[in-house]
Amino acid sequence: MRILISNDDGINNSALWALVRALQPLGEVIVAAPDRNRSGVGTGLTLHDPVRFREIYSRADGVRAYGVEGTPGDAVIMGLRHLAGGPVDAVVTGINPGNNVSHDVLISGTVGAALQGYLNGAAAMAVSVGLIEEADDETVQAIVRSVAAELAKKTTPRPFLANLNFPRLVVGPIRGARKTIAAPRPVEDRVEPGGRGNDQHFWILRRAGVHADYESLPPDSDISALHEGFVSISSLSWQLASDIEEPALDRLVEAACSALA
Amino acid sequence: MRILISNDDGINNSALWALVRALQPLGEVIVAAPDRNRSGVGTGLTLHDPVRFREIYSRADGVRAYGVEGTPGDAVIMGLRHLAGGPVDAVVTGINPGNNVSHDVLISGTVGAALQGYLNGAAAMAVSVGLIEEADDETVQAIVRSVAAELAKKTTPRPFLANLNFPRLVVGPIRGARKTIAAPRPVEDRVEPGGRGNDQHFWILRRAGVHADYESLPPDSDISALHEGFVSISSLSWQLASDIEEPALDRLVEAACSALA
Amino acid sequence: MRILISNDDGINNSALWALVRALQPLGEVIVAAPDRNRSGVGTGLTLHDPVRFREIYSRADGVRAYGVEGTPGDAVIMGLRHLAGGPVDAVVTGINPGNNVSHDVLISGTVGAALQGYLNGAAAMAVSVGLIEEADDETVQAIVRSVAAELAKKTTPRPFLANLNFPRLVVGPIRGARKTIAAPRPVEDRVEPGGRGNDQHFWILRRAGVHADYESLPPDSDISALHEGFVSISSLSWQLASDIEEPALDRLVEAACSALA
Amino acid sequence: MRILISNDDGINNSALWALVRALQPLGEVIVAAPDRNRSGVGTGLTLHDPVRFREIYSRADGVRAYGVEGTPGDAVIMGLRHLAGGPVDAVVTGINPGNNVSHDVLISGTVGAALQGYLNGAAAMAVSVGLIEEADDETVQAIVRSVAAELAKKTTPRPFLANLNFPRLVVGPIRGARKTIAAPRPVEDRVEPGGRGNDQHFWILRRAGVHADYESLPPDSDISALHEGFVSISSLSWQLASDIEEPALDRLVEAACSALA
Repeated sequence: MRILISNDDGINNSALWALVRALQPLGEVIVAAPDRNRSGVGTGLTLHDPVRFREIYSRADGVRAYGVEGTPGDAVIMGLRHLAGGPVDAVVTGINPGNNVSHDVLISGTVGAALQGYLNGAAAMAVSVGLIEEADDETVQAIVRSVAAELAKKTTPRPFLANLNFPRLVVGPIRGARKTIAAPRPVEDRVEPGGRGNDQHFWILRRAGVHADYESLPPDSDISALHEGFVSISSLSWQLASDIEEPALDRLVEAACSALA
Repeated sequence: MRILISNDDGINNSALWALVRALQPLGEVIVAAPDRNRSGVGTGLTLHDPVRFREIYSRADGVRAYGVEGTPGDAVIMGLRHLAGGPVDAVVTGINPGNNVSHDVLISGTVGAALQGYLNGAAAMAVSVGLIEEADDETVQAIVRSVAAELAKKTTPRPFLANLNFPRLVVGPIRGARKTIAAPRPVEDRVEPGGRGNDQHFWILRRAGVHADYESLPPDSDISALHEGFVSISSLSWQLASDIEEPALDRLVEAACSALA
Repeated sequence: MRILISNDDGINNSALWALVRALQPLGEVIVAAPDRNRSGVGTGLTLHDPVRFREIYSRADGVRAYGVEGTPGDAVIMGLRHLAGGPVDAVVTGINPGNNVSHDVLISGTVGAALQGYLNGAAAMAVSVGLIEEADDETVQAIVRSVAAELAKKTTPRPFLANLNFPRLVVGPIRGARKTIAAPRPVEDRVEPGGRGNDQHFWILRRAGVHADYESLPPDSDISALHEGFVSISSLSWQLASDIEEPALDRLVEAACSALA
Repeated sequence: MRILISNDDGINNSALWALVRALQPLGEVIVAAPDRNRSGVGTGLTLHDPVRFREIYSRADGVRAYGVEGTPGDAVIMGLRHLAGGPVDAVVTGINPGNNVSHDVLISGTVGAALQGYLNGAAAMAVSVGLIEEADDETVQAIVRSVAAELAKKTTPRPFLANLNFPRLVVGPIRGARKTIAAPRPVEDRVEPGGRGNDQHFWILRRAGVHADYESLPPDSDISALHEGFVSISSLSWQLASDIEEPALDRLVEAACSALA
């Protein structure tokens, strides 16, 4: 089995290498990730400038790793179409320090990277934890591996795009895994002036909206699952094609639970 | 009524000003758009660098216009939270020369800009035509105006994100409008080497996949509607929440048809 | 006579258009300048990414103006080699709001733009004033025109690179013009931490050094001339080739003085 | 003795680490270099956006190394003012694969990096070879070390900026070292159209001018020295202050020759 790994925090982020360690037992792992932190660039691609890459010193034996001067989406396309040297069974991105949940996941580069895998026909999944040190947790690693193995079986007519989130481990042990939907939480961005002298500039501050109280959310939302200590597994495929993807999503949840038992 | 307009081709693109002309009869129009062509950057935001803007020479009387040094999403957030100077009734983006359809719409900056409006609680819509000169067509302008007016009424519990596409006018007159879903068309990106001498680089070429034959698509897909000469109106809101948004989507279709009659 | 104009503050800076007005009486004027503020990028060129441009709405009758997505140096090269449509007699850059003096002029994009004109074989000059509103002063405009006309005569075996600075007009009227050398003033850059939360970043603050007391400077330095109310004209050509350029520099000083009389 | 090393080809370029190896015998070496290839950006600084850095895996024992997201000049300023943790005795940049000679050296980031060291009061030197593999040559390394040791003594009233170039070793052994001036060779940039479909863009191609025949150059030029098999050592300090720097330049030449003997 061959798995392409990417992220949005850049190829030097330790949680990327935690993902490599989690998936190496499944087969060949190749890394193609941005050479810098590119979080927040969402689904963006570099279509009007050239993209460059460089093979870098790999922190894992037998794993080829490439730093791509581009977005997370660029890195996955470079990986799939140029660097992997053949078809891959799955694209897994992350591990992102900080959960990617609610409608706001689309600005996440972790999701944006997985999306390009999905659009290019690969089984794809974005993985996030609450805190960076949790990426190395043994249970987290076992669950990621179990879910990725199931995903790579490609049991649906078309591959799909899964979003895997872990609850905060400091709050308590993982209670199980649940199939979820993205919580309809609005954002309330703020624009803060900055700069000095003649250089007036502004910073965009991303803020979750005030409607984030847990009671108002649908009980099957991703935020609710995490809040209650469950692993959240949702489909970000378009239209949540319930007829073909629901059973597959069920199997991912089972895979997660089996790693917990 | 106040409407915020943006796009991804940049504030100097003539089709942006066609949209301004289409919507000016509805009330106050404010433009906040990238100062350069930023197509392809999708949902990306600039969260790690400052964002700057500049009021520019407006091509329409009474319309304030700002060029933002950032992504389409940055421009909408700057517009909503800083430049508009108060609440807006709708965010409308485009007119994009080239249709934004299928699952691939997420790399469109036109959609990425509308998305930030939607996430920030505004009624939002992305508008695209097949060819740039069609943005000035009288029927197109009347339909855009009619649909935007309906959208701005905000008749659903939560605002939603609509995607309006026009069929190629050269093929024949518009036959009507349809509610659609995003066609499940995969992409087949190519990576092409470029550069000279020591500077080896690569270009990412976006290509629609081979499964784009019309027969294989769901009959209610956006691509099918355009192919048959209909205006396509889809919801890009998450989960296509059929219970609350379906009737609203029906009303947008009616609004489009009423401008045709 | 054809003159190519550029700057580093971007094509929308009002002092650029003051320079256009100053030089239009001499002949045909073409503008190729960065489409955004690019001050501080010095001599930098874009050799590894494509460069784009766009003809923009010109604020002066009969003057073609192009906004270049690149550095000031890129803009001049695009102007000389692609946009001008033939040889030019001089490249004049500015008017920069804020003097460009001392050894530190090399980080100025105004100088960096003029440098590319010089390296490409054109007579070239960078022009700076103390405050942006002084770019419109009648005496300033007359002196710029007179000096540029002399420069464009190309009386030396090889064209050279002049640096023209005006003293602060608020202090008193211009007392004359002097041939100067770049003052040997060191800089004392500061690095200031910024950012919030996990995003730790830094700002580079450019600061003139403590040795900037006027007494310690060579009496023929550019800073000294400005301090005493004189227009400063120096050569930034390499090696200050005194044998071939000194007489030419003398003639520029005379041209400045003649516009004062 | 503490030496700050930087370059413009980025922290992963092997010739940077050749320079580290050459200078380590002299004392403590610290590396602060761009995290990507940034050749061609000349003297540019990042004054309007934040600059970030990251400590990276060092390829030399006992050498701290930082990848800076910025220009070569930014890297040196970050190194001097933030990362070194105290004063440094010299800033040495390179080794650049490809000679930096003639008036055109100012677009070199290797020189641009050294320039910021010089402006900030450090003894500074840029080092270049003809071909990247020559950076590891034993004689080259010995000469670099000998010249840097002399430079770091700071025997002039003010530190200065030296430019050290090696002749092509494939042509024959190094014949000696010479004090030179920058050859007055013009450039003849070309602008080449590129892009496909609607995206029309341009590439700037840097080309040395036609006057580069050796006979027409001053015999003491840097190009002439290299052509005749000599190491070229020139001062890039302003005005080539012959009275204070000439003797120091003489001593650098002696240091180079002594490493040859």
